[in-house]
Amino acid sequence: MENLRITLDESEIPTHWYNVAADLPNPPAPPLAPDGSVVSPEQMLAIFPGNLLEQEMSAERWIAIPEPVRDAYRLWRPAPMMRARRLEQMLGTPAKIYYKYEGVSPAGSHKPNTAIPQAYYNKQAGINRLTTETGAGQWGSSIAFAGQMFGVDVRVYMVKVSYDQKPFRRSMMKTWGAEVFASPSNLTQAGRDLLAKDPDNQGSLGIAISEAVEEAASRKDTNYALGSVLNHVCLHQTIIGLEAQKQFAKIGEYPDMIFAACGGGSNFAGVAFPFLADKASGDTKAKNLRLVAVEPTSCPTLTHGVYAYDYGDASGYTPIMKMYTLGHDFMPPGIHAGGLRYHGDSPLVSQLLHEGLIEAVAVPQIATFDAGVMFSKAEGIIPAPESCHAIRACMDEALRCKESGEPKTLFFNLSGHGHFDMASYDRYFAGQLEDYVYPKEAVAASLAHLPKVG
Amino acid sequence: MENLRITLDESEIPTHWYNVAADLPNPPAPPLAPDGSVVSPEQMLAIFPGNLLEQEMSAERWIAIPEPVRDAYRLWRPAPMMRARRLEQMLGTPAKIYYKYEGVSPAGSHKPNTAIPQAYYNKQAGINRLTTETGAGQWGSSIAFAGQMFGVDVRVYMVKVSYDQKPFRRSMMKTWGAEVFASPSNLTQAGRDLLAKDPDNQGSLGIAISEAVEEAASRKDTNYALGSVLNHVCLHQTIIGLEAQKQFAKIGEYPDMIFAACGGGSNFAGVAFPFLADKASGDTKAKNLRLVAVEPTSCPTLTHGVYAYDYGDASGYTPIMKMYTLGHDFMPPGIHAGGLRYHGDSPLVSQLLHEGLIEAVAVPQIATFDAGVMFSKAEGIIPAPESCHAIRACMDEALRCKESGEPKTLFFNLSGHGHFDMASYDRYFAGQLEDYVYPKEAVAASLAHLPKVG
Repeated sequence: MENLRITLDESEIPTHWYNVAADLPNPPAPPLAPDGSVVSPEQMLAIFPGNLLEQEMSAERWIAIPEPVRDAYRLWRPAPMMRARRLEQMLGTPAKIYYKYEGVSPAGSHKPNTAIPQAYYNKQAGINRLTTETGAGQWGSSIAFAGQMFGVDVRVYMVKVSYDQKPFRRSMMKTWGAEVFASPSNLTQAGRDLLAKDPDNQGSLGIAISEAVEEAASRKDTNYALGSVLNHVCLHQTIIGLEAQKQFAKIGEYPDMIFAACGGGSNFAGVAFPFLADKASGDTKAKNLRLVAVEPTSCPTLTHGVYAYDYGDASGYTPIMKMYTLGHDFMPPGIHAGGLRYHGDSPLVSQLLHEGLIEAVAVPQIATFDAGVMFSKAEGIIPAPESCHAIRACMDEALRCKESGEPKTLFFNLSGHGHFDMASYDRYFAGQLEDYVYPKEAVAASLAHLPKVG
Repeated sequence: MENLRITLDESEIPTHWYNVAADLPNPPAPPLAPDGSVVSPEQMLAIFPGNLLEQEMSAERWIAIPEPVRDAYRLWRPAPMMRARRLEQMLGTPAKIYYKYEGVSPAGSHKPNTAIPQAYYNKQAGINRLTTETGAGQWGSSIAFAGQMFGVDVRVYMVKVSYDQKPFRRSMMKTWGAEVFASPSNLTQAGRDLLAKDPDNQGSLGIAISEAVEEAASRKDTNYALGSVLNHVCLHQTIIGLEAQKQFAKIGEYPDMIFAACGGGSNFAGVAFPFLADKASGDTKAKNLRLVAVEPTSCPTLTHGVYAYDYGDASGYTPIMKMYTLGHDFMPPGIHAGGLRYHGDSPLVSQLLHEGLIEAVAVPQIATFDAGVMFSKAEGIIPAPESCHAIRACMDEALRCKESGEPKTLFFNLSGHGHFDMASYDRYFAGQLEDYVYPKEAVAASLAHLPKVG
C-alpha cells in the first residue's frame, strides 16, 4: 500500500522544542509597561514561574523537553499525519494534501502541548495551583487535564455565556478535577465590581483574564497560565511541526504550502516555525515553501490590523506587546470558532508577517463549515470550527491547483475535533450561520484607543 | 524509555479476520424460525447481502479482509495500545495494565470496524441503501460514516427519547450525510400502528429494529445493517484483538486476563476471540489466560440469564437464536451505558460461556463511573459509560493483585470515548445515578414468554 497514514514510534517524539527567536532577522520587541518602560522580571514573576519566563526571553534555538513532559506527551503523541487522498479525489485536484491530526489528545486539540509543560514547570517551581480563563473551554479543559497529570490544582474562570451554554466542556474540566466558575464571579474584586454594576453580566475573555490574573497575582501559592500568544506557548507547540518534519522525511515528501488556523497564534506557530528553521538554515527544499496563517474575516487581525504596541487583554491590565492588532477593545462578532476571536496575535507570528516571512489570509464563516463538512465526508473526522479555517484555505489552494494543473504538496494542521461543537454544525445545517465582512468602522474605533507608546 | 505506547504501522493492519466458529468444540446452533424450522437463506437475503450471509455461516478460520476495507480502516487504524502505568501507580498495584483504545475512530468507538465492511459488502452486492436502528447513536453514526465512505445511502431510525435528548449524535449522522428519523415514525406500518395507539410513544430499540427491518424487507434496493450480536459482526470486530496480539508480541508480553464490556457481544468478541485462537491452537502462553465479559448488574444477561432460543428483538420479528437471554420483552432500567441494555447476547459469545471457555461478571453502575473518573485522571481519556464497565472489572482485579502481590498482566478494551456522554458524568457528579440490583422478578416474568422451541 502507498503511505496514507504516517505514524511515528514513541521513541521518535522530539527531544527539543524549536525556538524561532533564534532565527529572526531582527530581535523581538520586548513587552512594555504602558508608560514605555520595559517590564521587569519581578513583575512577571508574580504570576509566572522563572523557568517559563526564561523560555519566554530565550534566544537559544533548541530547548530540551524535560523527560516528564515527553512522558506525558506519550499519552497521545506522536500525533498521526495523514494523506487526505479521499479529499483529493473528491476535489479532483492534482495536489497532494497532508494533514497532522492534533484531535487525538485527551482534551481534543493541540492545547495540551503547552498545558503539560506549563503545569510541569510550575510544579518544578514549587507552585501547586494555577488559575486561568477559558472561553468555550478548549484551553480550560487542557490545563485541567495537565494539572491533574502533575498534581497541580486548577481553577478556571469560564466566560459566563459559555459556562451556561456549553456545559460539557465544563464537565470535562470537573472530570479532571478542576474547579470551574462562571466569570464574572464573586471571587475577585474585578468580578465583584462588574456584578455590582450589572448582576447579569455575561462575561468576556477579557474579564475572565482579569479575574484569573488578579487571583494569581494576589496569592503566593498560585500562578497564572495562558493558552496562546506568548513566546513560550508558541515554543511548546513546535512539537507539532517537528513531528511533521519527521513524518514527511519518512515518506520522502516536503510541503510546498502549509496552512494553519490563527487566533492567538500558537497553533500556527506550532506547525509553521519548525519549517521556518529549514528556511533559515538555507535548506534548498524549503526555498519556495509558503506558510499561510488563516483567520476569520470577522476578526482579521493579520490581514486588516495594524502592527503596533497594544494590550493583550480587553481591559488593559497586561503589559503591551508589539503585534498585529484590531485594538484591544475590539469586540469580534460571535462566530463559532471561539478560539479565533482575539483582537491581537502572537508577537512572534506578527513579527514574521511584518518581515514578510509568512502570509495571512482571511476566510468567511459559512465557507469554513462547507469545508469542514466536505472534509468529514471524505476523511471521517469532524473538525473543530477553528480547524475548518485551515481546511478551507487548503481546499481553496487545491482547487487552484485543479485549475492550473500543478501537483503541489499541501499540508495543514487539523488542530482539533468538533465533538463539542456539534451545535455549531446544527446551526450551519439549519442555515442559521452568518458571514461577517471586515468590520471596518468598529476596528477604526478601537484602533483609536491604542496605547501611545511604541 | 520503556514501552508505554505500542503502535503499529499501517502495513501491519491484519489481512484476515478470525472466525471463532472454526475452533468451537461443538458446532454453533443455527437460527430458527419460531416454528423450529431452520431459517432459509432466501428469507435472510431479503435484508442481508449474500457475501455477508456467507460470513455469517462460515466455518473457515481466517477470512480475508478486502483491500478497500483495509484501506478505509487506515483512516484510524491500527488503534494504539497503551500501558496504563499512571493508573497502576494510582492503584498501587503490582499488576501491569494494558488497554487498546478504539475511541480513535471518527465515530468514536469500535463500531466502525464492522460498519465499514458491512457498507462495503452491500455496495459489492449492488445495494446502495441501508436502513438501521440506533439508540443513543453510536451505531447509527458509525454506519452513517461507513455509508459515506462507500457511497451507500443510510437511513437511521433513532429511538425517539434519544433523538430528542441526544441531538449531537444526530448531528454527526447528518454531517456524514445520513437521514435520521425519530422512531416510531410515520414511515413504516409498524411505526404508524404504534403512533395511532399513542402519538407520544417514546420508542425503544425493539421498535426501531422493527421499522428498519420492515423498510429493508419491503424495498429491493435497500438492506438492513445490525451493529452487534450476529456472527459476521463479531468476525469483523476481531481486528481489535488481532492488532493487540501483534502489539503484545512487539513488547514480549502476553495477558493473564482480558476484560471487555459486553452488551450485544461484538466488542467482547472482537478483543477476546483472537486470544481464544491461541488457546485452541495449544499455544502454551495462552494456557491460563482468562477472558472476562463485563456486563451491568441491571441487565445481567450472561450472569443471570438462561441459555435458550429467543428472539433477537423485543417485538419478536426476528428469527430465534440460541443465546443467554433475560427474555426478549425484558426492559432493562435506564442506565447510562445504553450499549449494554440488551436482553440477549451474541450466540457465539453465549456458546463460549456455556462451554466454560470464557467468564462473565456483572458490575453496578456507580462503581463503573468511579472507575471511569479515576481512569480519566490517570490516563487522560474520558471513557464511554460502556467502556467504564471493562475498566471497573480490570481495576477490581488489579486491586486483588495488590492484596495478593501477584504481578499479573491485565488487558482491557477501551471501546470508546465519552465525549457524547458528558451529561451522564454530570449526573454522576451530582449524585443522581442509581445502582440497580438484579431485577429478579422482571426477568422471571419475561422468561415466561420465551418461545417454546429449542
